[in-house]
Amino acid sequence: MSIGEDALKKHYEWQGKIEVVPRCPVETRGDLSLAYTPGVAEPCLKIQAEPEESYRLTRRSNLVAVVTDGSAILGLGNIGPEAGMPVMEGKCVLFKTFAGVDAFPLCIKTQDTDELVRTIYLLSGSFGGINLEDISAPRCFEVERRLQELCDIPVFHDDQHGTAVVVAAALLNALKLVKKEIGEIRCVINGAGSAGIAIAKHLINLGVKDLTMVDKNGVVAKGEPWLNAAQAEMAEITNPGHLHGTLADAMRGADVMVGVSAPGVVSPEMVRSMARDAIVFPMANPKPEIMPDEALRAGARVVGTGRSDFPNQINNVLAFPGIFRGALDCRAKCVNEEMKMAATRAIAALISDEELSENNIIPSALDLRVAPAVAEAVMRAARETEVARQ
Amino acid sequence: MSIGEDALKKHYEWQGKIEVVPRCPVETRGDLSLAYTPGVAEPCLKIQAEPEESYRLTRRSNLVAVVTDGSAILGLGNIGPEAGMPVMEGKCVLFKTFAGVDAFPLCIKTQDTDELVRTIYLLSGSFGGINLEDISAPRCFEVERRLQELCDIPVFHDDQHGTAVVVAAALLNALKLVKKEIGEIRCVINGAGSAGIAIAKHLINLGVKDLTMVDKNGVVAKGEPWLNAAQAEMAEITNPGHLHGTLADAMRGADVMVGVSAPGVVSPEMVRSMARDAIVFPMANPKPEIMPDEALRAGARVVGTGRSDFPNQINNVLAFPGIFRGALDCRAKCVNEEMKMAATRAIAALISDEELSENNIIPSALDLRVAPAVAEAVMRAARETEVARQ
Repeated sequence: MSIGEDALKKHYEWQGKIEVVPRCPVETRGDLSLAYTPGVAEPCLKIQAEPEESYRLTRRSNLVAVVTDGSAILGLGNIGPEAGMPVMEGKCVLFKTFAGVDAFPLCIKTQDTDELVRTIYLLSGSFGGINLEDISAPRCFEVERRLQELCDIPVFHDDQHGTAVVVAAALLNALKLVKKEIGEIRCVINGAGSAGIAIAKHLINLGVKDLTMVDKNGVVAKGEPWLNAAQAEMAEITNPGHLHGTLADAMRGADVMVGVSAPGVVSPEMVRSMARDAIVFPMANPKPEIMPDEALRAGARVVGTGRSDFPNQINNVLAFPGIFRGALDCRAKCVNEEMKMAATRAIAALISDEELSENNIIPSALDLRVAPAVAEAVMRAARETEVARQ
Repeated sequence: MSIGEDALKKHYEWQGKIEVVPRCPVETRGDLSLAYTPGVAEPCLKIQAEPEESYRLTRRSNLVAVVTDGSAILGLGNIGPEAGMPVMEGKCVLFKTFAGVDAFPLCIKTQDTDELVRTIYLLSGSFGGINLEDISAPRCFEVERRLQELCDIPVFHDDQHGTAVVVAAALLNALKLVKKEIGEIRCVINGAGSAGIAIAKHLINLGVKDLTMVDKNGVVAKGEPWLNAAQAEMAEITNPGHLHGTLADAMRGADVMVGVSAPGVVSPEMVRSMARDAIVFPMANPKPEIMPDEALRAGARVVGTGRSDFPNQINNVLAFPGIFRGALDCRAKCVNEEMKMAATRAIAALISDEELSENNIIPSALDLRVAPAVAEAVMRAARETEVARQ
C-alpha cells in the first residue's frame, strides 16, 4: 500500500485527528453549578471588568487558531477550505504533541482578502494566537500584515516564517561544517513566492550579504517586467551583482542553493557549477528540485530536503510548536524578527559540534527537546525586545 | 465561600474548561507521514473530489461550534464576546460529557447582524452543526433564520429551542399528573423575548390551544402599540380571548404559568387566582418569578424552576446534547419542529408513570440516559421528515 493509500485508510479510521475534551468534571449538581450556571457568571463578570483575565479564566492562554482559506494547500493548490481540513487538523496534532499547545483548525469559506482579514480579526478574541496556513501568495503578505496591525495577539504565517526559521537553522550548521562565514557566502534561493521571500529576508537578517532570488521567469532583478510587488521589493535588497538570467546563471559559483520551487528543476550540471563544499537544500515536497544522491554525486557536500526518508529533514514542525509555546507563555504581542532569529539559533544549537556531520545538521522532526528549547529562546527574545506582557 | 467565589477560584485552577487533544499518534516518522505530509494529501484530494467525505475524513461529523456575540450572556446582558467565553466553554463541556459531541467555543467580536451572519456562514464548512448562544432578541431570530437558509448543517439557537423543548417535556408530565388534556388548558407565558416566543410556538405545535403571552408592558394582544415585530406575529396566533391587561389579569383562571422573565414578578395572589391543580414554572435564573415554596403555599400543585436546589429543574442540558447527537448521527440538514417535538416527548417519557409525582416531573440534569434517548428520537423524526442524509 502506498503512503497515500495508507493515509486515506487511517483517516477513515481516525474520523478526525483532533477532539475537544473537558478539563473539569460534571458529575454532580455541585460540579454543574461551578462549571456552568449559576457559578459561571462570576468569571464572566471578572473578565468584563478586567479583559486581561480572559487569559487566566479561559483556555485562551494556551489556544491557537490554525486558519486557512484553502487557497494554497500543500502543493495541491486552491482546493478549497473543506478539502484543506486534513492538513489543518494534522497541524493541530503537531502543536499539541510537541508543545502542549491547544490548536483548533478553521477553514474559512472566502478568498476575498478583506473578508478573510475581517473574519479572522472577529475571531481573534477567542484565541491567544493565530497561525495562518496555506494562504496563497501574494495575498498572504497582506493578510498577515493587516492582521498583525489589527490584533494584539501573535499572528504568524507558518509557510513563510516557520520555513525560514528552520532553513536558516540548517544553514547555520551546514556553514559551520564547511567552515564558511555567513557574511561571505553567495546564496541562491529558487522560488520567489511567500516561502522564498521569507527565507531571503530571514537569511539577510542573520547576516547573508550576497543573496539572489530566482523565479520561474528567471533571476529577480531590478527592472524585470514580470516582478510582482513583493518581488520588486526583494529586487531592491538582493542580487548585489545585478545579475540577470536563469537559475543556472545564478547558481554558478554559489555556496548555497535553497529550493522552494518545483520538482526536478535543478540539474546535476548546475550543482557542479557551484563553489566548493556546496550546500544544497532542494525542498520541493514530495519530489525535490534534485534528488539528494544526484546532488551529492554532482559534488554537493551537504544536502537537506523536506523529506523524512533522507538525512537532514528541514521540517517546519521544528519551529512553529516552540515559537507559539514561547509567545503564549510570555504573552507576546507578536512574533518579531528577534524571536524568529532566536528560534533559528536554538534549533541549530541542539546539534553539538561532536554530532555535526554531513548527514546531521538539524535535529529530527520528532526530537522532543526542540520545542522547549525554541520556546525558551523565543521567550527570552520577546522579553529583551519588550513585546512580552509577562 | 459563595458559589460565585468558589466558581471563580475553580476557573483559575482549570485555566480553561476545554482542551484540544490528538486522536492519532505522532511518535515515528511513519506516523508523521500518515497524519501530516506527505500522506495527508490523499484525504485532501478525496474531499476535493467528494465534499461529503469531509464528514468521514475529518472531525466534522462530531463537531459543533458554540457561537455567541456576547450580547445576551446569561442574565448579565451585553458583556461582550471575551467575557462570554466561560459560558461557551461550559456549554462545550456539557456537549462532550453528556453526548460525546466535540464542541468548540467561538466568541465573535461584532454585534452587527449582517456581519455576524456572514462570519458564522464563512466558518460553517469546518463544523457539522452550529449552536447559537446568548445572542440578544430580536437579532437572534434573524441571525438564526438567515443562517438556516445559508447553511446545509443544523443551526440551533439553544436559548430559544432548547428551553422550549425542556419546558414542554416538563409540562407534558405535569399535565399527566394533574390529569388535564393539553388541548384544553389555558396557558400563560410571562416574558415575550426569544425564549418566551420559542416556548409559545413549541407548545402550540404540541397542541396547546389557549395560550397568552405577557410582556413587561402587559398582555401581548393585537393592536398594542408597544409590540415588536416578533410579538406582533405572536399576537396573531395567541390570546384567543383577546385579553388586554396585566400579568395578573392573564393568570386569573389559567392552568399553567411559564415564567422566562424577571425575579419576583409573580405574587402569591396571582398563583391563588389560577385554576385548580395549577402548574407554575417560574424559570428566571437564579432568582425565580416566585419562590417554589411560596407558589406551593399559594395553591400551585406542580412547580418547576431553572434551579438545581429545588425539585423539577428545567434545564437546557436535557435537550441540546441529545438533539445535536441525533442530528449529527443522521447528518440532518436542520433541526425541524418534528425533531424538537420528538426530543420533548423522549425527555418526558424517561419519567415512568410510577415515578411521576409533584416533585418528579422531569429527569435530573445529570441523568446519563437522557441524551441517548433524545438522540434516538431526534434521529427517527429526522428520517421520517426526510431531512436526514444517512
